[in-house]
Amino acid sequence: MNEITSLARAAAAKLLHQRYRGDVPGVAVLNETLDVLLSHRSVRTYLPEKLPVGTLETLVAAAQSASSSSNLQVWSVVAIQEPARKARLAALAGNQQHILEAPLFLLWLVDLHRLAALSKERNESAEALGYFESFLLGAVDASLAAQNAVVAVESLGLGAMYIGAIRNHPAEVAAELNLPPQAFALFGLAIGRPDPARPAEVKPRLPQEVVLFKEQYEWGERERAGIAAYNERMRGFQQEQNLPVQDWTDQAGARIRNAASLHGRDVLRDVLNQLGFALR
Amino acid sequence: MNEITSLARAAAAKLLHQRYRGDVPGVAVLNETLDVLLSHRSVRTYLPEKLPVGTLETLVAAAQSASSSSNLQVWSVVAIQEPARKARLAALAGNQQHILEAPLFLLWLVDLHRLAALSKERNESAEALGYFESFLLGAVDASLAAQNAVVAVESLGLGAMYIGAIRNHPAEVAAELNLPPQAFALFGLAIGRPDPARPAEVKPRLPQEVVLFKEQYEWGERERAGIAAYNERMRGFQQEQNLPVQDWTDQAGARIRNAASLHGRDVLRDVLNQLGFALR
Repeated sequence: MNEITSLARAAAAKLLHQRYRGDVPGVAVLNETLDVLLSHRSVRTYLPEKLPVGTLETLVAAAQSASSSSNLQVWSVVAIQEPARKARLAALAGNQQHILEAPLFLLWLVDLHRLAALSKERNESAEALGYFESFLLGAVDASLAAQNAVVAVESLGLGAMYIGAIRNHPAEVAAELNLPPQAFALFGLAIGRPDPARPAEVKPRLPQEVVLFKEQYEWGERERAGIAAYNERMRGFQQEQNLPVQDWTDQAGARIRNAASLHGRDVLRDVLNQLGFALR
Repeated sequence: MNEITSLARAAAAKLLHQRYRGDVPGVAVLNETLDVLLSHRSVRTYLPEKLPVGTLETLVAAAQSASSSSNLQVWSVVAIQEPARKARLAALAGNQQHILEAPLFLLWLVDLHRLAALSKERNESAEALGYFESFLLGAVDASLAAQNAVVAVESLGLGAMYIGAIRNHPAEVAAELNLPPQAFALFGLAIGRPDPARPAEVKPRLPQEVVLFKEQYEWGERERAGIAAYNERMRGFQQEQNLPVQDWTDQAGARIRNAASLHGRDVLRDVLNQLGFALR
């Protein structure tokens, strides 16, 4: 083993320790891209500076380079930089301060409208777009694209934060963005230069044996033991971060308890119908 | 501008030309990670060799490093390496040869079962999981995770191919994987070492002005002109690749024409209900 390999091994072990806290899987490689991926953290505080020229176009090129099912390209993205519009969108998304701070706020759309419009202009049927499958395909492809953009963001030394709360008020968001029928803002993404004075931490995740199955799914003692270990590791993390100490099981349980836990998203299916997605 | 910047600029321009074919956005940076992202191609031919030890664990670590909404971690992944099971799954997914060739086939699950089981064991309600929003959140987070795995795959010199056709027969796939209620195989991912004798090409995408909007959505002359330009560029690409020459507009239109275009996925919503997702 040469010195570079040895250093890479040590760097990989350190990143994996941050991510898993004592349950490091047998990973022995590291390159610049893996370093970016494993170092991910959600950034909630940004410096008040513009992004370098060309950043948005670079992120969109990365996003469009992600796979697209049958090359249908059923997503779009709306880039928000005007402070007043950003503030109105932030108000619709739980008043999250980091949306206001971030110089760039991207709204990722499931966009079946483009294909629907092209078919309509050619007097052809686009019946398949009315099915649940087509909406799901759009949601998957928009997510693959956005994640490529996030990786690109982080490779450039910038930071990002997904904003699922944009789904709290989908009809109002659609109106703000002037969305046509069959277009839907799936999530937001705040992007900016992280404030080094308020650094974000890598959040520990469930041990691999809880989420990775070989050949078939299992739910048994191994998985329960992994979750118990994770609760303990998260308590350690919370103490370090001066966060309220609570089992992950309790935190997650509270988030899924009842319809009220969904912050208005319990009506999402009906609103999607109103936005032109039949979801058959 | 020093020499390294000049080289990076030229390399970026080349990658962007492959992706956009004459409509290169104003991107002036390139790093190793952007190189990986912009170079993506779907790999359909693999060498018959095992992946290096630790590859699967590296990919899962990258996947778990992606953002997770409220840290709920509502996805899992099943790694298939047994040839017989791979063959049965390939048969359910349109008999795609590359699934058989790939040494590793990953099934990415929307997994609400884990949280449902934890709540049940604690005699607590998990009512929110029955809503459409919870399924959608799982589909988004599974997609973000999988895309991180794809980027990791490609950074390691390996290749991958998403298999959406696994949704053609979701109930049979669930049975094969022994999935509990509220778990669903969203897509597959074939992974292996690309066969250099049968290289994959970078597929051109729509011009940025068609998918990227500033402040508000638009559907007008600029978008239509971009689509016309794309049809022409795709014809050039198809001719180069000895593929049937057909406008993208026609190809996409055929894919969305009617329920039969969905290859059985027109019943997906009903099957999801049967698999335990209420989708309220």
